[in-house]
Amino acid sequence: MSGKLLVFGTVAYDCIETPSAKADFILGGSASYAALAASFFSPVKIVGIVGNDFKENDLNRLKARRIDVSGLTFDKDRPTFFWRGKYHENMNSRDTIDVRFNAFDGYVPKLDEDSKSCEYALLGNISPAHQKAVFDSMSNLKFSVLDTMDLYIRTSNAELREMAKKVDLLIMNDSEASLFTGDPNIINSGYSILENGIKSLIIKKGEHGALLFHKDGFFQIGSYPLRSVYDPTGAGDSFAGAFAGYIAKTGDASFENMKLAMLAATATASITLESFSCDKLENAGFDEIQRRMKFMRKISEIPEK
Amino acid sequence: MSGKLLVFGTVAYDCIETPSAKADFILGGSASYAALAASFFSPVKIVGIVGNDFKENDLNRLKARRIDVSGLTFDKDRPTFFWRGKYHENMNSRDTIDVRFNAFDGYVPKLDEDSKSCEYALLGNISPAHQKAVFDSMSNLKFSVLDTMDLYIRTSNAELREMAKKVDLLIMNDSEASLFTGDPNIINSGYSILENGIKSLIIKKGEHGALLFHKDGFFQIGSYPLRSVYDPTGAGDSFAGAFAGYIAKTGDASFENMKLAMLAATATASITLESFSCDKLENAGFDEIQRRMKFMRKISEIPEK
Repeated sequence: MSGKLLVFGTVAYDCIETPSAKADFILGGSASYAALAASFFSPVKIVGIVGNDFKENDLNRLKARRIDVSGLTFDKDRPTFFWRGKYHENMNSRDTIDVRFNAFDGYVPKLDEDSKSCEYALLGNISPAHQKAVFDSMSNLKFSVLDTMDLYIRTSNAELREMAKKVDLLIMNDSEASLFTGDPNIINSGYSILENGIKSLIIKKGEHGALLFHKDGFFQIGSYPLRSVYDPTGAGDSFAGAFAGYIAKTGDASFENMKLAMLAATATASITLESFSCDKLENAGFDEIQRRMKFMRKISEIPEK
Repeated sequence: MSGKLLVFGTVAYDCIETPSAKADFILGGSASYAALAASFFSPVKIVGIVGNDFKENDLNRLKARRIDVSGLTFDKDRPTFFWRGKYHENMNSRDTIDVRFNAFDGYVPKLDEDSKSCEYALLGNISPAHQKAVFDSMSNLKFSVLDTMDLYIRTSNAELREMAKKVDLLIMNDSEASLFTGDPNIINSGYSILENGIKSLIIKKGEHGALLFHKDGFFQIGSYPLRSVYDPTGAGDSFAGAFAGYIAKTGDASFENMKLAMLAATATASITLESFSCDKLENAGFDEIQRRMKFMRKISEIPEK
């Protein structure tokens, strides 16, 4: 049975420089990417805070994807969460040049009744304290996903571990999983995390795909092959959003259905990589996601003997 | 129709140090690893040169796997090809501390009639000049594979490109493919190589699996998940050997069958990673290879909707 997905995290403005392009003050943030990606699969409600510089046009982008924006708080005194980053030549690593919490600083998320009753939640990349505030307010959850990043593994380790045990699925990338466990072996890191009371875990490996560690088994999927990457920002958030949206749409959080959610997430995230913000994803739409899901099946299928 | 596989390359002694273990003067070299791996699939003839320190016991290891060693030259005056390497903490990178060509220095491979008539050839990791000498002597080839490494991309680029166009399949790892094309994007590197007159290409990505670029399509496979890696030395050679052995066994070099050869290669190479030399592969044998092939299918299969 399908349900509504609450997506919580940052709604941000990003200034991004890649080896080939540059853009200033474009819509970014973990919740924006995740909500837009999820919106191709299920009803989405976005929860977060934006500042006094937030553009009507960006609000309209969310609305155009039928995302419920009634859970967004508008701070009249401070600007929107801000991030400035620069990618290295190989696009696999980047430097954070500036990050300002702005409106997010001191923000305590308060959920309305509609938000509290959502059956599915994606707690996108932000501090575990913020994620906990949202999670603890929700009373009707069937399936919840927690995303995180290296910053919170370093600065809020105990709170993150506590949250990770509460949700149904933890998502990290490979270097974060190694940081979390202290083990350079990704496979052993994944199994160790699972053996330490986390219900299920996805380790994202960027261009190398993703791994699912689950009590019912292990699954791996490659990435959608791209001959060029335009901007990697938000690909991980898009992956998490599309994954959670697929689970919310199908109402099935089994191991087998998580594999299909990873297929949907891989296809969706690959489109995010091909433009700044979610520009291409919003334009290309569900047809392109489906085309890529089909192609992923084709290139990943091991023939019968 | 199956046939005999000629495996050419180095037969070597290695001194290896990993973060957890150390071994001196153990059997190594591209041809040793490849021949032992291939021997689980097809008849194998190994061609190369060993020195006056080569141990009878190591010759017997090859013979025990029914590898035809009549193509090995024995140099009475000089020692065997030697390599000393040390792995970094994450096992993904290593330093070559010493390499001595010894008996291989100035060696001009001369094939007997039986070697010349082999229908399948794996030209393992050694200089393109050596590989060319063997390739040009073979008169009955149905399918040939060329493996290489960064050293020869840097020092023998023109010769390597010439050889790469002659064979049916080129094998490289991801950093080598980028070095070969000057493009950090692995997917674009693969397609560029294919578009420049190479018949087909496998890019190995170590723990992240392998990619096949072929005129009939693209295919990707993950790696066999290992919670710990004992010694990565020779895993790439084992992959190439098992791949070529599988093609020789089945007598089918189609795109579809190459996918199955990659499955066999992935399973076989993963066993090499779990011990020094081919110790575990020789002990565990074909049953373990088959078990891993089956497991790879299971963890890679995307369910129907």
